Amino acid sequence: MTKIPQYTKLLELYKEITLLNNINGVLYWDFEVMMPKKGTEQRSEELAYMSGLIHERNISPQIGKLLKKIQEHKSFDDLSFQQKRNVELIMRDYEKATKIPVAFAKELAKHGAISTEHWKTAKAKADFSIFRDDLAKMIELKKQEAAYLNPDGDPYDVLLDDYEYGFNKKIYDKIFAEAKSGLTPLIQSLVTATNQPDDSLILRKCPVRVQTALAHDVAAFVHYDLNAGRIDTAVHPFTTGYFDDVRITIAFDENDFTNSFFATMHEVGHALYEQNIAPEFKYQPIGKATSSAMHEGQARFIENIIGRNPAFWEFYLEKFKKITGKIFKDVQLEPFAHAINKVVPSKIRIHADPLTYSMHIILRYELEKALFADKLTVDELPSFWNEKMEEYLGIEIENDAEGILQDTHYAWGLFGYFPTYALGSYYNAQFLKVLKKDLPTWEDQLREGKIQAILDWLNKNIRRVGKLYDPLDLVKRVTGEDFTAKYFVEEVKNKYTKLYGL
Amino acid sequence: MTKIPQYTKLLELYKEITLLNNINGVLYWDFEVMMPKKGTEQRSEELAYMSGLIHERNISPQIGKLLKKIQEHKSFDDLSFQQKRNVELIMRDYEKATKIPVAFAKELAKHGAISTEHWKTAKAKADFSIFRDDLAKMIELKKQEAAYLNPDGDPYDVLLDDYEYGFNKKIYDKIFAEAKSGLTPLIQSLVTATNQPDDSLILRKCPVRVQTALAHDVAAFVHYDLNAGRIDTAVHPFTTGYFDDVRITIAFDENDFTNSFFATMHEVGHALYEQNIAPEFKYQPIGKATSSAMHEGQARFIENIIGRNPAFWEFYLEKFKKITGKIFKDVQLEPFAHAINKVVPSKIRIHADPLTYSMHIILRYELEKALFADKLTVDELPSFWNEKMEEYLGIEIENDAEGILQDTHYAWGLFGYFPTYALGSYYNAQFLKVLKKDLPTWEDQLREGKIQAILDWLNKNIRRVGKLYDPLDLVKRVTGEDFTAKYFVEEVKNKYTKLYGL
Repeated sequence: MTKIPQYTKLLELYKEITLLNNINGVLYWDFEVMMPKKGTEQRSEELAYMSGLIHERNISPQIGKLLKKIQEHKSFDDLSFQQKRNVELIMRDYEKATKIPVAFAKELAKHGAISTEHWKTAKAKADFSIFRDDLAKMIELKKQEAAYLNPDGDPYDVLLDDYEYGFNKKIYDKIFAEAKSGLTPLIQSLVTATNQPDDSLILRKCPVRVQTALAHDVAAFVHYDLNAGRIDTAVHPFTTGYFDDVRITIAFDENDFTNSFFATMHEVGHALYEQNIAPEFKYQPIGKATSSAMHEGQARFIENIIGRNPAFWEFYLEKFKKITGKIFKDVQLEPFAHAINKVVPSKIRIHADPLTYSMHIILRYELEKALFADKLTVDELPSFWNEKMEEYLGIEIENDAEGILQDTHYAWGLFGYFPTYALGSYYNAQFLKVLKKDLPTWEDQLREGKIQAILDWLNKNIRRVGKLYDPLDLVKRVTGEDFTAKYFVEEVKNKYTKLYGL
Repeated sequence: MTKIPQYTKLLELYKEITLLNNINGVLYWDFEVMMPKKGTEQRSEELAYMSGLIHERNISPQIGKLLKKIQEHKSFDDLSFQQKRNVELIMRDYEKATKIPVAFAKELAKHGAISTEHWKTAKAKADFSIFRDDLAKMIELKKQEAAYLNPDGDPYDVLLDDYEYGFNKKIYDKIFAEAKSGLTPLIQSLVTATNQPDDSLILRKCPVRVQTALAHDVAAFVHYDLNAGRIDTAVHPFTTGYFDDVRITIAFDENDFTNSFFATMHEVGHALYEQNIAPEFKYQPIGKATSSAMHEGQARFIENIIGRNPAFWEFYLEKFKKITGKIFKDVQLEPFAHAINKVVPSKIRIHADPLTYSMHIILRYELEKALFADKLTVDELPSFWNEKMEEYLGIEIENDAEGILQDTHYAWGLFGYFPTYALGSYYNAQFLKVLKKDLPTWEDQLREGKIQAILDWLNKNIRRVGKLYDPLDLVKRVTGEDFTAKYFVEEVKNKYTKLYGL
């Protein structure tokens, strides 16, 4: 297949690392889902050992030597596009992994662990001062890390690029400006609308047994293959696996079936991405999702664009009633579709609806940007947070536990990561624009319970191609346009004004 | 703890290998119990990769160098008994692993796989000739392997020692002679007794739900800790795990609850061994079971000496009836205890009762011994088998599928392994002799549903000590006598003549 034996060898090494990562995935899944509780210490040793083994492989000098020989090889230009892309992706990871000195990586990990312990106490006591010094140190460490990765780059740009390849402040500034200007008035008008949804239609006692049946039914509807996956219970829903074995977990709330129902659709969205990458890419760098934000996008496509679509419920409500028996017998389509799309500003990001969620992210982006540009001090963070919450969502934060301390991310130094959480929905809206052109009847099909053509479109355009393209390139290829948030604004404006009868 | 840094390093390497083996155990358990079926190919790659990794570590020259330095170290004599034992055990495995050339090990594995495929066809068609040549080649390969392990040893002695340390023909000849002379007349008298047990008392439809409840109840009775284990379903029952996470699997037959019930006791017996090795031995060579036959013995102790003991049922029958509702309401203690101890010669080893089982093993031992002494040819195997079955159990074998072809072991070259299957029950009977002296009321305690003192005895004498002693040494230490089968004969004679009213 290639005249470069070093390429073959490099891909063999990559396959070994992939196998180790997949094994780690099984250990982790078992830990969360199956392991008896006394096994924790033993399993921690196994997981730590595997991490060390994987890291050792990732920074192996052998990879560096092979990469060099491949690039200098006289037949390099004969490599196919896919082969060159594989080399590029391995190079990118290898350089990143080897630029960080081992001692520094250890210091960062150690401080993350200590810092997280203090963050827990600080959050429990709603006292930012307990966490303040750790946070200040973490910010310095992350600036140092950014300098290792790219001494000439702007530190926050380096971190943004680290979490979603190709991104920087310039791009985020543009899309968040688009999002903010569109969403702020929309949210305002929805929140003050007279026609508010009626929660009581969904907040009815629904046994776990019934919710489990629903989860299996809706998973099958979107073609999740249980011969290549499983649905189990875990404290926090997640998806893990590779190609032919991708498992999801969900959690149940007897008083709110929407938790497990939409978590199922969300996680199945993740699983379908993994299961539908071109099988010939298996064990190659291109045999992975484009990016974590694109992954999140695919999950939300199933959850929001399908699952919270009134057109889907035109078909599914009858099935839903059949499975749930007497519980939702009296429920009508319109108020039900409205209730599952309720927009209500909340203090806590993870409780936010798909619309106000963006504002939580924009707040964090602006905070991080100012912080890394030294325009904001650590001590100013709590008040900065609280003022923005008031400004964007009209919410008054009463203590730091529900403000700056709400997420664990900063304790781990994950600056530049939150912004990626907004991308998935924006990617989706831009893709949807094209899907509508290619498949004008897509919602009519949903109304009839037909999903195949929509899944085919996603497979062809997004899932199958794996990591052949970086996220911004993929957006451009599929839509012919540069990445923008304007279609997201357009989509939610249409959807929600209709739902709210404005 | 030691003045020999190489000892510390050696134990670190050993711990890594143990972690890898434990990880492999999780992958295997998941494969058998949880994995969706399309995951087979992926998982096979993971398992194969892990095996390679573990083998690589096992034969690492670093181990050889450390062993040498430790033995030559001026402080070697200062090592504790346990430390010296650790060195001895690592040495033993290392020498065994490095004596076999890699190319030969591959050839053996490859022929095992091919041979097993042909054995399957041969068994399906009940045609020994299809398997004959593979078997002949496998015998030659095993002789070659024995020569690698010990060029001066008798090949069959070498193989016997390989599967149970310290064993050879001399020892097996003695114990099997004891067993045979005692068991043959006993089986004869039981089979011809007028007072035969009534199967219909146990062969009643019992739903999986009820059998599951029984399994959990009886597992708790013998103190299996579900916070450090799990009970799941698999095609063939097995136990896997390490210290704080040891899981069992069972299978259900709705028409015969004894399958799942005694499998639970058997597998829990295995699990209790692993869970009760001294915790301070964890990740050391001494932190393992003495031997696989001793492991099997501990499983049968719970299954047979407790579970099939009429004294246990004096207590447990009422509980059993409560859990099973109407199904066994009319059952009386004596006929029930007789029914679960039915002795009936069978063609197939894995269907044999604990008494006739020995004869199946003795047959195989005699066959293997003659074969490796060139006193029996491959072509004579089927008739040798059939004549012995007639002689020992009065059973007429009608075709080779139920004769020489019944087990997969020979296709894999497992000569010398079957004899170990008899040892567990003989070990147990010899231990029981001492337990009765130390705890004369043991059966009275069982009658009252008390098990703690019995478990304490097993923990103290067998389980806790891990692999501090080899099996024959452990028997001698605990019982003060050399290993013998005479107590087994004595025990079953007492038990079964009483049950059969002879």
